[in-house]
Amino acid sequence: MSGDSRAIGVFDSGIGGLTVYKALRDLLPREDFLYLGDTARLPYGTKSPETVGRYAVQAARLMMVEDIKLLVIACNTASALALSALQEQLPELPCIGVIEPGAKRTAEISATGRVAVLATESTVRSGAYAAAIARHRPEAKARMLACNLLVALAEEGWCEGAEAEAVIGRYLRLLEPGSFDTLVLGCTHFPLLIPTMRKLIAADIPIVDSAATTAAAVRDHLEGRGLLAERPGQGNSRFWVTDSPERFAKLAPRFLDSDFRLSVNLVDTRFERIPAGG
Amino acid sequence: MSGDSRAIGVFDSGIGGLTVYKALRDLLPREDFLYLGDTARLPYGTKSPETVGRYAVQAARLMMVEDIKLLVIACNTASALALSALQEQLPELPCIGVIEPGAKRTAEISATGRVAVLATESTVRSGAYAAAIARHRPEAKARMLACNLLVALAEEGWCEGAEAEAVIGRYLRLLEPGSFDTLVLGCTHFPLLIPTMRKLIAADIPIVDSAATTAAAVRDHLEGRGLLAERPGQGNSRFWVTDSPERFAKLAPRFLDSDFRLSVNLVDTRFERIPAGG
Repeated sequence: MSGDSRAIGVFDSGIGGLTVYKALRDLLPREDFLYLGDTARLPYGTKSPETVGRYAVQAARLMMVEDIKLLVIACNTASALALSALQEQLPELPCIGVIEPGAKRTAEISATGRVAVLATESTVRSGAYAAAIARHRPEAKARMLACNLLVALAEEGWCEGAEAEAVIGRYLRLLEPGSFDTLVLGCTHFPLLIPTMRKLIAADIPIVDSAATTAAAVRDHLEGRGLLAERPGQGNSRFWVTDSPERFAKLAPRFLDSDFRLSVNLVDTRFERIPAGG
Repeated sequence: MSGDSRAIGVFDSGIGGLTVYKALRDLLPREDFLYLGDTARLPYGTKSPETVGRYAVQAARLMMVEDIKLLVIACNTASALALSALQEQLPELPCIGVIEPGAKRTAEISATGRVAVLATESTVRSGAYAAAIARHRPEAKARMLACNLLVALAEEGWCEGAEAEAVIGRYLRLLEPGSFDTLVLGCTHFPLLIPTMRKLIAADIPIVDSAATTAAAVRDHLEGRGLLAERPGQGNSRFWVTDSPERFAKLAPRFLDSDFRLSVNLVDTRFERIPAGG
């Protein structure tokens, strides 16, 4: 067996990164995955760059003990705020965030270059999406909107119905109608709300969800370097959280679109304690 | 000047405790206050008892460096999960949480003993409200409902209007109509939503907000021990947060019902670093 059978690390502040994990697993079924949700310290969306950078580096170190071949930052806030800290402090670990692949796709498909990005407060404040889109399409105009309530809506599982429509509708009205031709979901929780969003925006406006674009970027990275796993069967997935594994296991099916109950282990980012058999 | 001029410490996971601080300051204007919001690690509402206990003890130690005379746990989740850890590990520090005063008031005013408590997920899971109400009124039946979206709604400032009514309405419908005669707000964010709640529940159902009841309990505690400050003028208030002081200062006026912009200092719970002049 050739190829690289080491696991792909997937890191998120909590559970939203499971939308990215799902896209990865669907595209790369032979890979092993190690998912770490930093649920003791979520959400990252309202925290400072210094704090998010420190948390991400602690988490990455913990996952490196398990010899991962690549780290996917499956969290927009951490991708916006922590990628440079990770690259500086852990240069030996290849990292792929969710912003760059989504921004590239957005730059490619937008008809006029005027796009709207829904994200958390910290991601908006970082300016990372607008900068990434502009790298691929300098004349593009990205309007960023902080939508913190959408995270709570997705976690509550109220993704459709009158409340979802009222809340999402209010955010969308804050964007001028007709001011954008592409809608970018700049938070990994938001794909759960796509069916309701589709009811509220024009049918010809594409919605860019960075989960699929990130999965494709990971495949390209591994394939280009001969690092894809080449085992005959399906890979395994392990799930670590820093707090409340029961809550994670209970909410996970909403994000994975399946009834399968995950086995989730508790880890401690401070002491790098790894659970037995974890 | 007699009395005890040391500050009253007020601790919360973030900003919601300002509703309790406001009630304290209004009732006890001569006191000094030191408020600590653990914004780097909020929200506590979805975290485990062990984690919340550890965070609360770290925060209390940090405030004790400033020689506070009493600590008010202005956070329902921390009151539910961390009060025993605080009393065990810091027996020299008197602590008053928000649950006991609210529960006592509820037990006193409920006509039938059937009450509904809206709270965060962790507070509900702890069972602390039901237990505290039952201590004062053993036959009482408290129905607990986790309402995580209401925190986000209050922080977004969407306290009135169609979205607030849709979201609050859905939670209230989850309680059987007619199944309670008193509504208890078991989260310090929720008092901001009282005007909308009032529109959605019967006029004869009282809403118990633990801010005012906690302030009265603090006054009774200090008065009974001769520990009230007896300075001639108004006391001072200082505000510490563990992350994003700008965000705290920006949101604070919503909770304090005033346009006054606070001066907020950043502290670090891990290293017990105190800001210069903080």
